[in-house]
Amino acid sequence: MLDLSDRLAHGKAVLQQQPFSRLLGSELTAWDETRCTLELPLRAELLQQNGFAHGGVVCYLADNAITYAGAGVLQGAALTSEFKVNYVRPAIGERLIARAEAVAAGRTQAVCRCDVFAVEDGVEKLCAVAQGTIVKAGP
Amino acid sequence: MLDLSDRLAHGKAVLQQQPFSRLLGSELTAWDETRCTLELPLRAELLQQNGFAHGGVVCYLADNAITYAGAGVLQGAALTSEFKVNYVRPAIGERLIARAEAVAAGRTQAVCRCDVFAVEDGVEKLCAVAQGTIVKAGP
Amino acid sequence: MLDLSDRLAHGKAVLQQQPFSRLLGSELTAWDETRCTLELPLRAELLQQNGFAHGGVVCYLADNAITYAGAGVLQGAALTSEFKVNYVRPAIGERLIARAEAVAAGRTQAVCRCDVFAVEDGVEKLCAVAQGTIVKAGP
Amino acid sequence: MLDLSDRLAHGKAVLQQQPFSRLLGSELTAWDETRCTLELPLRAELLQQNGFAHGGVVCYLADNAITYAGAGVLQGAALTSEFKVNYVRPAIGERLIARAEAVAAGRTQAVCRCDVFAVEDGVEKLCAVAQGTIVKAGP
Repeated sequence: MLDLSDRLAHGKAVLQQQPFSRLLGSELTAWDETRCTLELPLRAELLQQNGFAHGGVVCYLADNAITYAGAGVLQGAALTSEFKVNYVRPAIGERLIARAEAVAAGRTQAVCRCDVFAVEDGVEKLCAVAQGTIVKAGP
Repeated sequence: MLDLSDRLAHGKAVLQQQPFSRLLGSELTAWDETRCTLELPLRAELLQQNGFAHGGVVCYLADNAITYAGAGVLQGAALTSEFKVNYVRPAIGERLIARAEAVAAGRTQAVCRCDVFAVEDGVEKLCAVAQGTIVKAGP
Repeated sequence: MLDLSDRLAHGKAVLQQQPFSRLLGSELTAWDETRCTLELPLRAELLQQNGFAHGGVVCYLADNAITYAGAGVLQGAALTSEFKVNYVRPAIGERLIARAEAVAAGRTQAVCRCDVFAVEDGVEKLCAVAQGTIVKAGP
Repeated sequence: MLDLSDRLAHGKAVLQQQPFSRLLGSELTAWDETRCTLELPLRAELLQQNGFAHGGVVCYLADNAITYAGAGVLQGAALTSEFKVNYVRPAIGERLIARAEAVAAGRTQAVCRCDVFAVEDGVEKLCAVAQGTIVKAGP
């Protein structure tokens, strides 16, 4: 069984193995058995035409965060089977923070929720909420 | 009222105004009053650790495609309020194609569906399905 | 392998084994390997305070219809794991008709979509669309 | 502005105006500006063929609960525009309890979450989680 620092180090390594996560620049900053925090510094390339973080960036972050939360509770490689996201406010600021949590889990799948916050001048505002199913990967 | 070639040219211009869509390289190839086609050539940067298109890339494409389908029927600027996506197969190949359609519309919002296909050696395979709400933007 | 009339007779029998489906009065009118049609005559008890079919009636019907569509393609007992529904128009009329279809399937789960129509004076109008995951039940 | 006891009495009255809610027997037991609790005693008519509460009963309760939570924060009549539900455990017991909360709200719509618990021998177990959009009704 992983201790928490090993788990986080392992999670960071997996994130670095995802070329798309490297392209965006997301950072896993916390990961325990049922929860994770995934952060993403915003830069011009990640915005849409009005200067907000693009919806695709926000849903990428929510999707990846619930995968980690589910993988934590399923104790192994996992992937998102499905999820839904509600955008509740334009994502404006210097950074996005996604906090995800497994709310239920069986042997092969977990149901997770995620809140995505935009941090502007150090103030967090909720910009999206997500819910989805994570399934254990592979054999 | 826009004719179809004007609409498509306008849609391509809007896509180019989205820095994140330029970063990914998506291309609007068709757009009429209720449907659109949004394509994305795959390259190494858009993959996850197993060589598939990252889920975040697939959900970006679905999200953006339903926005266009909704904007077509709402006849103006629009944005995705919420959507859900089911990933049904690993997205492997040289290109993704998202085909979205508005299935219902009122004055201020539309409900759209989207199929995302991965094209490998010229063969399309369904890799994700999405459904969501698009709302008219601005005044 | 079931022939179609056996399948439909079997499906009708299962529906009659669900006390809640008997309470509501739903009728399975078609069921093949990937699609089903589930109908529900409306009566006063199934409405909400404005005279429309209650949302809970509409989502019951969508949920049950995608279960049948998924069970068809999974070839065995199945249950809905998750789904989402968008209500697109008040459900007014003498009858609801849900038409569901499996759009993708693996060995243990299927992804299905459903359109729910309200029939008023013989005219069908789309009142809800749904999408969800059906999983094979039992051993 | 309603005080809390008026709000709850008003909410109970609205629930009694819904014939379908009377048929099922749901009870509004708490309702403040952002949260509500909706309960439903289980009886044979509300089950499916394995003796669990029918999925349609669970999603009815989640749908209605998020409507109340949204109506509280929107301060007026409201209806569910869309929602998704994940069933996480068979709903077995003598009673269902849905607790819903508005997590974000604008002038015309709110995003709400809901947990549905089954109570068996006095012990609550989470059996479904939902998330959806509530819109203000009427003029």
